[in-house]
Amino acid sequence: MSAFDAASWNGIGIDSTCGGYGTCKKCRIKVTEGDVEPSKLDFRAFTATEIKEGWRLACLVRTAKDISVDVPALTTRPKAATVGVGRQVILRPAVQKRYIELEEPSLSDQRTDIVRIFDAVDDIEANASLASMRELPRILRASNYKVTAVFVDQEFLGIEAGDTTGLRYGIAYDLGTTTVVATLLDLNTGTPVAVKSMLNKQQPFGADVITRISATMLDPDALAKLSGLAQETLNQLTQEVCVEAGVNPHNVYELAIAGNATMTQLLLGIDPEPLGVAPFIMASAYYPNIDVKEIGIAVHPLAKAVILPSLGAYVGGDIIAGALASGMDRDKRLRLFIDVGTNCEIVLGDGDKILATAAPAGPAFEAASIKCGVRAASGAIETIKVVDGELEIGTIDDTPAVGICGSGLVDACASLVQVGLLDHSGKFVSDEAALTISPKLASRLVTREGERVFVLTWSKEVGDLSDCVFLTQRDVRELQFAKAAIATGWALLLEEFGVQESEIQQVLLAGSFGSYLSPSSAVKIGLVPKLSVMRIMSAGNVAGEGAKMVLLSAQERNGAQSLLEAIDYIELSDREDFNDKFVERLAFPA
Amino acid sequence: MSAFDAASWNGIGIDSTCGGYGTCKKCRIKVTEGDVEPSKLDFRAFTATEIKEGWRLACLVRTAKDISVDVPALTTRPKAATVGVGRQVILRPAVQKRYIELEEPSLSDQRTDIVRIFDAVDDIEANASLASMRELPRILRASNYKVTAVFVDQEFLGIEAGDTTGLRYGIAYDLGTTTVVATLLDLNTGTPVAVKSMLNKQQPFGADVITRISATMLDPDALAKLSGLAQETLNQLTQEVCVEAGVNPHNVYELAIAGNATMTQLLLGIDPEPLGVAPFIMASAYYPNIDVKEIGIAVHPLAKAVILPSLGAYVGGDIIAGALASGMDRDKRLRLFIDVGTNCEIVLGDGDKILATAAPAGPAFEAASIKCGVRAASGAIETIKVVDGELEIGTIDDTPAVGICGSGLVDACASLVQVGLLDHSGKFVSDEAALTISPKLASRLVTREGERVFVLTWSKEVGDLSDCVFLTQRDVRELQFAKAAIATGWALLLEEFGVQESEIQQVLLAGSFGSYLSPSSAVKIGLVPKLSVMRIMSAGNVAGEGAKMVLLSAQERNGAQSLLEAIDYIELSDREDFNDKFVERLAFPA
Repeated sequence: MSAFDAASWNGIGIDSTCGGYGTCKKCRIKVTEGDVEPSKLDFRAFTATEIKEGWRLACLVRTAKDISVDVPALTTRPKAATVGVGRQVILRPAVQKRYIELEEPSLSDQRTDIVRIFDAVDDIEANASLASMRELPRILRASNYKVTAVFVDQEFLGIEAGDTTGLRYGIAYDLGTTTVVATLLDLNTGTPVAVKSMLNKQQPFGADVITRISATMLDPDALAKLSGLAQETLNQLTQEVCVEAGVNPHNVYELAIAGNATMTQLLLGIDPEPLGVAPFIMASAYYPNIDVKEIGIAVHPLAKAVILPSLGAYVGGDIIAGALASGMDRDKRLRLFIDVGTNCEIVLGDGDKILATAAPAGPAFEAASIKCGVRAASGAIETIKVVDGELEIGTIDDTPAVGICGSGLVDACASLVQVGLLDHSGKFVSDEAALTISPKLASRLVTREGERVFVLTWSKEVGDLSDCVFLTQRDVRELQFAKAAIATGWALLLEEFGVQESEIQQVLLAGSFGSYLSPSSAVKIGLVPKLSVMRIMSAGNVAGEGAKMVLLSAQERNGAQSLLEAIDYIELSDREDFNDKFVERLAFPA
Repeated sequence: MSAFDAASWNGIGIDSTCGGYGTCKKCRIKVTEGDVEPSKLDFRAFTATEIKEGWRLACLVRTAKDISVDVPALTTRPKAATVGVGRQVILRPAVQKRYIELEEPSLSDQRTDIVRIFDAVDDIEANASLASMRELPRILRASNYKVTAVFVDQEFLGIEAGDTTGLRYGIAYDLGTTTVVATLLDLNTGTPVAVKSMLNKQQPFGADVITRISATMLDPDALAKLSGLAQETLNQLTQEVCVEAGVNPHNVYELAIAGNATMTQLLLGIDPEPLGVAPFIMASAYYPNIDVKEIGIAVHPLAKAVILPSLGAYVGGDIIAGALASGMDRDKRLRLFIDVGTNCEIVLGDGDKILATAAPAGPAFEAASIKCGVRAASGAIETIKVVDGELEIGTIDDTPAVGICGSGLVDACASLVQVGLLDHSGKFVSDEAALTISPKLASRLVTREGERVFVLTWSKEVGDLSDCVFLTQRDVRELQFAKAAIATGWALLLEEFGVQESEIQQVLLAGSFGSYLSPSSAVKIGLVPKLSVMRIMSAGNVAGEGAKMVLLSAQERNGAQSLLEAIDYIELSDREDFNDKFVERLAFPA
């Protein structure tokens, strides 16, 4: 990493317009301690005296030893944005615009249109595709040679008549299996100017990745349909965010898309079957240099799309984005990142060593396999506490309870274990034992259709079972299986890492489910290590944040790539000790 | 240039599979005289003893001094083809195929499909586009992991089930304003397996580039139409050569297209207007990395197209191809290359210094402005000699004369100048003077509709003017203007070069017209320098040959690029001395 990148990485701004290619010669720093050989370009950028004094171009300074440098005051304040888990990102988008006023050609200056433009933009070594050149002659002449050249990294996208440097946008997408979120970013300021979300239009093909993969195996047309539906979803959101912000989609030049490996392959039109069956193989981890026209999204026709890379079939681009947004690659604390869901991704790292795995938690957290389970929507019980020997129930939108969603299920089990109505093996205690704990709670432990259940809300009046919301013994078991899978995952990672549970300094709960989960309940059921709840935090929608970061900073984009190379993936289904450890983790912690 | 390339350039084969990237380590040579520092890769390829003995990888040997090397006997005979003007080209096509048998993935080997393939092809550092990866999972598994990987340079095109290494084709096109020629090449052998030609379907929009450019200025839809017609032309030829050779178009992986700058921009859908008006500006000289789908040609969907680069609006990719095929970049003789046509391109060089210009000859050589002018088709007078005081006339297909085509016009003027019926100023001599030369010829000098004309063929009987083919005083003037423009062009190049006409060692007449032109007539009218006819040769369709060369050899492809950088373009319309020199050159040589 160059000194320039190291500074940017740490939130210290150094002047630059070229983005670290050694062409703009603005990133001047003075080495005050340590030795740094001057590079070839230093001799062009500095006088011999300056070089002797220690002046170097920061983007070319590479050293394995500690050095001290002075960074001149910036001529302009570097723009920065706070994204992810409190990450300060210095704006350095790949999308660049340059307003140029060109000399008209003459018989003594017959430079081609493209050379004339590139000569005027001396800080970007650009490549031009055929499509980027098709309109050059017309636009150049119609605008009297006053144009704005648009680039994404070194790729030339074309020119626009007049000065359009103020219009520079990108869209970050969190392409979830269930929910898709789009954030329109003003790349000049780093500000989100519109956010929209909607259900993934692939839903009719199944709620989870496995059913969608199965669909492609049964119906030869399903892949094309699923691919089209993903594109439709992204397109609808694109239109909505642009309309809301009053932005012309032609001024959107780059997209970043974070999705799991299945969502990614489906969007790209790549057969996902090998992702769904052992040994779980991706077509590719990386999809570099994607043109939006390849994925049919209606923004600038030559815009580029960054697909967050995936580590494995079950640790996808969404997790890489999340790990990036939560700084798993640089935070020196020992941290555990858990994206809770049907497939649960777990990352453990201390900034130097990073391990990851995927745990098949099953659908309990989506409440799909739960008797009274419902999606996290109006009327779903989302919080449960025991206060003074009686239940306190919270529903989404405070409307009458219609069922229980994932976070309610976790809370319910945590509370019942805590008060003792569930023993540590996960079994409802006897009626006698229950009565000694709380008569009110004991009255909720009833037999319904031959099965012992715990009633969360009575139907119309106490004792009315006709339309009540309840928890079955089987539901508790479902949750135990789910949390045991996750706990086995992080336990094995801790073992591989050679550290103890107690050494973990922070646990990040990510994903839409993780964000709603009560940290104390998560501890109580053993979903996360037994730590002070102060060390357990909701990270929010970190996948979307990671996608935003790669649009705002080419430096962070490289970080995503480095992360993928830095993380070691541990395959659980391959391990002989998995089952033993899983059984050990089924019980609720004492 | 590396020793490897220098050897290949000179027709000496050195083993290699990677194409000079330092990865295959097969291009072993032993330096016997001179000093060459070993490169990093040499230490991997050779033992310390071998390095001491002088062993190096030829592709990494670069030296400015003379060295002597031993080249080991080839393990396989290098394949070579003779193309262009006697050029021996060692086959090294950009299109590469590798048959690989892969290990099936397992839980302990979860490499992605693309990494599994690339790991097995260790001599190509490839890039994969999204489109190249879409079918990977399906084809890999359907073919039991026995596949052929296809590459064009470092670009991965995808895999094919089983071993298809025997099927490797490319098509070279000479995209002329009038005629388009396609040659299907077997890239495994370098052999042309089918050749087809047809009229450019753009013909209805005008016979020459200027009328086609004008069409785009008058009709906003014309550019799209012309572009579509060029693509249709190429597509029809593509289909025809594939059908004739029994080749599946999906096994055609690369195309090379040589056309003038206008034909190139029209094919690519780029507004040609600035090419047609001063100061004659191209959108770009280069169009690198074109996908065939961008120009709508139905071969392998991910095939690549090489567009021969253009030096200027009037020295196009066809001329660069021609200069390449005639070795203008390496032949050490002082040579003059003339592509005769409505726009005439002239190149003068000695392998070190190369100058080029374009001369606006006008349509005389196409016989378009000639009273009895016809296209070069059946019945056109193409050769004229004076034997024993009478004319000997040759027509195309030996059918009765219907008119005179370009080469006939040149022959007619040359003969009449030689016998004295045309004086050196280009004027028909008086009847009296004519009679002293030859009574038979003098009888052909008649007055028709008030104009002095020379009858080439009588209508039915001698003296019958009703339907005769004749040459007018004005026709002679037209030819004088045309040849003066060309002669001024090469005269100015000679002046710029600092050499005399007599020093020219070879004149190459190129283009479909140049090939039919009689060298002695060309000398007699002053179209080419006054040299022994032994030094003047027809080069044939060198544009098409150049296009073939870039398909057969990546080395030659680089040569085309180097040529463009090596050639200095001299703009004639900019020169104050052009008119003076032009007037000087109007007369026929004494």
